[in-house]
Amino acid sequence: MRTKAAVAVAPGQPLEVMEVNLEGPRAGEVLVEIKATGLCHTDEFTRSGDDPEGIFPAILGHEGAGVVIEVGEGVTSLEVGDHVIPLYTPECRECDYCLNPKTNLCQSIRTTQGQGLLPDGSTRFSMLDGTPIHHYMGCSTFANHTVVPEIALAKVRKDAPFDKICYIGCGVTTGIGAVINTAKVEIGSTAIVFGLGGIGLNVIQGLKLAGADQIVGVDLNDSKVEMATHFGMTDFVNPSKVEGDMVAHLVEITGGGADYTFDATGNVNVMRTALEAAHKGWGESIIIGVAPAGAEISTRPFQLVTGRVWRGTAFGGASGRTDVPKIVDWYMDGKIEIDPMITHKLSLEQINEGFELMHKGESIRAVVEF
Amino acid sequence: MRTKAAVAVAPGQPLEVMEVNLEGPRAGEVLVEIKATGLCHTDEFTRSGDDPEGIFPAILGHEGAGVVIEVGEGVTSLEVGDHVIPLYTPECRECDYCLNPKTNLCQSIRTTQGQGLLPDGSTRFSMLDGTPIHHYMGCSTFANHTVVPEIALAKVRKDAPFDKICYIGCGVTTGIGAVINTAKVEIGSTAIVFGLGGIGLNVIQGLKLAGADQIVGVDLNDSKVEMATHFGMTDFVNPSKVEGDMVAHLVEITGGGADYTFDATGNVNVMRTALEAAHKGWGESIIIGVAPAGAEISTRPFQLVTGRVWRGTAFGGASGRTDVPKIVDWYMDGKIEIDPMITHKLSLEQINEGFELMHKGESIRAVVEF
Ligand SMILES: [Zn+2]
Ligand SMILES: [Zn+2]
Ligand SMILES: [Zn+2]
Ligand SMILES: [Zn+2]
Repeated sequence: MRTKAAVAVAPGQPLEVMEVNLEGPRAGEVLVEIKATGLCHTDEFTRSGDDPEGIFPAILGHEGAGVVIEVGEGVTSLEVGDHVIPLYTPECRECDYCLNPKTNLCQSIRTTQGQGLLPDGSTRFSMLDGTPIHHYMGCSTFANHTVVPEIALAKVRKDAPFDKICYIGCGVTTGIGAVINTAKVEIGSTAIVFGLGGIGLNVIQGLKLAGADQIVGVDLNDSKVEMATHFGMTDFVNPSKVEGDMVAHLVEITGGGADYTFDATGNVNVMRTALEAAHKGWGESIIIGVAPAGAEISTRPFQLVTGRVWRGTAFGGASGRTDVPKIVDWYMDGKIEIDPMITHKLSLEQINEGFELMHKGESIRAVVEF
Repeated sequence: MRTKAAVAVAPGQPLEVMEVNLEGPRAGEVLVEIKATGLCHTDEFTRSGDDPEGIFPAILGHEGAGVVIEVGEGVTSLEVGDHVIPLYTPECRECDYCLNPKTNLCQSIRTTQGQGLLPDGSTRFSMLDGTPIHHYMGCSTFANHTVVPEIALAKVRKDAPFDKICYIGCGVTTGIGAVINTAKVEIGSTAIVFGLGGIGLNVIQGLKLAGADQIVGVDLNDSKVEMATHFGMTDFVNPSKVEGDMVAHLVEITGGGADYTFDATGNVNVMRTALEAAHKGWGESIIIGVAPAGAEISTRPFQLVTGRVWRGTAFGGASGRTDVPKIVDWYMDGKIEIDPMITHKLSLEQINEGFELMHKGESIRAVVEF
């Protein structure tokens, strides 16, 4: 079949919207009609050419929602008409990682996924001249139709709006999951969130959901205060307005350091501040942000010997097929909010404008609707 | 009263064995006759002048065992004749830290302890000319008699030999506790221990006690193999004999990285190797060793984002008054061994020879008996 897609033809180039060929699903695969997709910093990281592992040409996008159109041989957990969210972290429920409750990093199709291929080592997309187009993070949601492995699709309820729940495919789950699955924040905890973009806001609403008592937001931009407060922030710190040592200031306002700190900036210096602002004896710091290639975190080992714990999280520690449908329920039940974070709606043709909005800091999330 | 002590009169000088004055115990304090004390690297760190927080003159030593001679006003948990092990990490059972099950870092007397003073801000030791002599880590076990706060004394059974259980006051508890309290190693785990000195050996016997399946020891000195094997090491790696990348080698022999890794070297480069040799998805690395002043640990945040956890431990995460008596029981019941690690016995007059043995790497533990 043919479908319409925004293709990353080369690093650093704007995406090109075009007709492409799409083969039907092979064994264990599913053809999905994408109804909506968010634009994430990770897509932009690859598009821009900054990602040393970027592969081109490719169809980017990893934050989508849609409907099953056709299932390949042997697919048993999904049928035509099901509503689904593609998962860049699959859940095969059979590998050593899926069977270990300490991790969500299913490894069953990792190698081919990293090469921009489906598990059998080939692509379903190609240019009209036959040139193969790579998949991206196993999802490729910047296309009206895509083919995804069955184990990388979460089945969700049919009454949930695509243009909101697509965001659960990445940012919402990453932020809320970092709190619930990775940090396992307890009721009454204190927390600091560094970076009040989309991920940070979702960390904040995760903290509120978990019953945190104090939720300190840190951002260089005062304009973030209103939205962050809406989602549950109790205190705001603008580092550019703090005189003296930032760690000391944060330790003071949290009464000795926070029980949990979260970096949602990707800045390795901020990651260090986040660790050191965690409470002596038991504070845990969770790295969510993706650092530039080659950047390193540092601290004195004394910080760990005196009881702080340094962790990271990917996709919020969520096992997607199990956890994503629950988060969709939470949204539909009003336990979490997504609508205020979807600040812009675009057509596929406007997708490059979406990346401009991201760079200008004007959007929390821009969503492309098909 | 007067007692005999080895006094650190100035940084970098040999200890001087001399008669000193010792005041009796004030409220909440206990006079202990020290029967045996181990010589630890931490004592040497301070004696040598490398410790930027070292205070002189002082009576060092923090790994002792002895008998209660007199109790001060208000002391209720100990009486004359009780056998005790002094604790450099006290357990008041009342502070925020003692009441938090995530930490053992009782803070109730931390400030004065760090200043070489007892909790009321004074010293009990003085030179015969009246010059005050500082306490050390709240213990000062390099003296035949010492005064220690009640909350910093673990009461232990009377049939346990002082010249062995003194080692439980630091090294044994630090190593075994790192496994049991900090890492919480599960039966069937794989582990790597960096550094096969006294702490490393105790980590190894902790791992054996916890039911680890594979216990890899790493040391530059092949002569450590025999003793480490005796305590439970299953595989040995000498980094000087590994061609190529050390992390890759360790990941290979552990089938993907170890569930738990322990640094007992204090070398920040080894700490990085230990983290990176932990298993993707769930591996935890525990820093036990004390790094030189100012040294920093580093890694790419990707190591944490892909599921590794970086922790530290102090006194093995043990709450001393509660846990130390249990470890003494384990020793007496034959669940753990200490005797082969006590390689040298000295008199107080020979104490400087003990530090020489330490530098030559000839001793695991030298113990001074009074
Ligand atoms: Zn994303
Ligand atoms: Zn799996
Ligand atoms: Zn010690
Ligand atoms: Zn306490």
